[in-house]
Amino acid sequence: MSGADRRARLVAALNETGLDGVYVTTLVNVRYLTGFTGSNGSLLVPRDGPAVFFTDGRYRDQADHELPDVEHVIARDLSGEAAARMTGDTWALETHTASVDTHARLSHLVDGPALVSAGRLVESLREVKDEAEVAALRSACDISTRALEGLLDGRLVGRTERVVARDLENRMFELGAEAIAFETILASGANTAIPHHAPSDRVLGDGELLKIDFGARVDGYHADCTRTVVLGRADDWQREIYSAVRASQAAGLETLREGVPVADANAAARASLDSAGWLHAFTTGLGHGVGLEIHEDPFVAASHTGKLTSRNVLTMEPGIYVPGHGGVRIEDTVLVTRGAPEVLTTMTKDLLEIG
Amino acid sequence: MSGADRRARLVAALNETGLDGVYVTTLVNVRYLTGFTGSNGSLLVPRDGPAVFFTDGRYRDQADHELPDVEHVIARDLSGEAAARMTGDTWALETHTASVDTHARLSHLVDGPALVSAGRLVESLREVKDEAEVAALRSACDISTRALEGLLDGRLVGRTERVVARDLENRMFELGAEAIAFETILASGANTAIPHHAPSDRVLGDGELLKIDFGARVDGYHADCTRTVVLGRADDWQREIYSAVRASQAAGLETLREGVPVADANAAARASLDSAGWLHAFTTGLGHGVGLEIHEDPFVAASHTGKLTSRNVLTMEPGIYVPGHGGVRIEDTVLVTRGAPEVLTTMTKDLLEIG
Repeated sequence: MSGADRRARLVAALNETGLDGVYVTTLVNVRYLTGFTGSNGSLLVPRDGPAVFFTDGRYRDQADHELPDVEHVIARDLSGEAAARMTGDTWALETHTASVDTHARLSHLVDGPALVSAGRLVESLREVKDEAEVAALRSACDISTRALEGLLDGRLVGRTERVVARDLENRMFELGAEAIAFETILASGANTAIPHHAPSDRVLGDGELLKIDFGARVDGYHADCTRTVVLGRADDWQREIYSAVRASQAAGLETLREGVPVADANAAARASLDSAGWLHAFTTGLGHGVGLEIHEDPFVAASHTGKLTSRNVLTMEPGIYVPGHGGVRIEDTVLVTRGAPEVLTTMTKDLLEIG
Repeated sequence: MSGADRRARLVAALNETGLDGVYVTTLVNVRYLTGFTGSNGSLLVPRDGPAVFFTDGRYRDQADHELPDVEHVIARDLSGEAAARMTGDTWALETHTASVDTHARLSHLVDGPALVSAGRLVESLREVKDEAEVAALRSACDISTRALEGLLDGRLVGRTERVVARDLENRMFELGAEAIAFETILASGANTAIPHHAPSDRVLGDGELLKIDFGARVDGYHADCTRTVVLGRADDWQREIYSAVRASQAAGLETLREGVPVADANAAARASLDSAGWLHAFTTGLGHGVGLEIHEDPFVAASHTGKLTSRNVLTMEPGIYVPGHGGVRIEDTVLVTRGAPEVLTTMTKDLLEIG
């Protein structure tokens, strides 16, 4: 699906609302609707008539190249240029991200139309991935899987968390990642109890848990995967919490299909942890959408009132974290379908005991 | 200077305004005032009484560790908790970054006080670096310099932009960087005409310009440095534009000292490019503050009405960009003093002709 197709979906949504248009200022939404990859740009999408893109002089050539099909205006004052083009009765702004100051300035400049909230209009379109997006996500997940498999083939005990994290990241680059999806979380020993641990100079030791939460980025799309392994032979406690997390993740994955309430996925994974007696040790969210952002709609939570749709891509990532002792997380990025979900991060989830 | 000292400076600024307090929601400002390095947190700073920090359950242990001296509240709804603690007549919000929706919610929840804009109150404190900040910036710049020197000692012709960029980044990690400061810009041949070029699979060729804009991050502080070299022997045109950029950068650096209007630094570097006949080919900004953000106040521009102060840290980065042909940029991160500025990125600016 091209940017033009995506803009057409947005206009169709506008037609249901009676809005004269939406001024898109959230950069990742601008990218979604146009393909623009720079750091400053906005997009005016009227219900009637063509969209107009605004950026500054640094991106003149890039805009010519990336948006050959959209009129673009090069300016210092993007909001001023956009405001002058808002005609009609009612325009929508992205009030969940637009700053109070930007809103005040637009309110001052816009001559005529009322300004209202667009809600998460573009984000909701982004929840359903098109073929090009699925292909990029599949590629990012595939690179991530192969990089981790390569890393775990080598010897890790005796190296530091930081060095091993860099090794994994380099493998992703060598396999074609354009960037890492986020700063790698790599924790060993008691550090595995910290859900978001930054790699340190701690040396990996024999018999310890090793938890790695990482991913590659391809064409702007993020992979998100976590595996926990044992360095050497697993003891009973490590096996117990690993099994509990694995069962919880399987229970969550089982629910991920078109038509299922998002809250049910949350409830299923939690019920599994609860029945194993470990729910008290689970302190993070269970999952989130993945795409142009590493965390995006839909968020897997009890408060979510919607249902899953085919081509949602999201994570399922239960964990057990015992402060001062250790922890386990297992996370996949999965594609929702009408049947069983397709797990894009295909690395094994058997408990690995490695050197 | 500790977080407590920084908060005391903020309270001193509040005392001049008559505000009852400020609710800090810009994450990097929260980090500056507390040392918190997580991804979700806010800080209530009353004029009278101790500050209160808010974060979610993921960061319970981290908050204990990073903010032992600040009361913290663990909650899902940070704004709700903060609103309940705003008493008095007038509280300030960071309206330049707070979203319209967050503001509307706070306005609804706050019972009594009027809500006004804090302006860029914390950002203005951040413009003047304290000793710990200068030390981190110095370290980040030193790592960057040594990494580039090491890279340029080796053979580059025949390798791709992407591979060379990764080589440079790995050198920064090996020298102790916690992260790269931003995605490395590395451009060869005609790509050097693109101010912000992402490394591609283009192979570096003999006789070409090579432009590298990069930096290391240390303790959250960013280095920002650009050097342009010739792969092989420089031709006359390459020498001409290199000399013009170098003279412009020197003219700009010359002005960087306490008491000089920021706009004068902008004017001096531009005048130099103009006298060389190349001002038309300079299409970006001339410089920006560097610290916890890669781009922060003060921005070097004609419109800036303030003056430089000792312990400002900023970049000076003129360039010449000739579309389809090539370009040169030279950029340093410098520390402003009462005398000559201290250049923190100490790599030579002589035109290097390398293999």
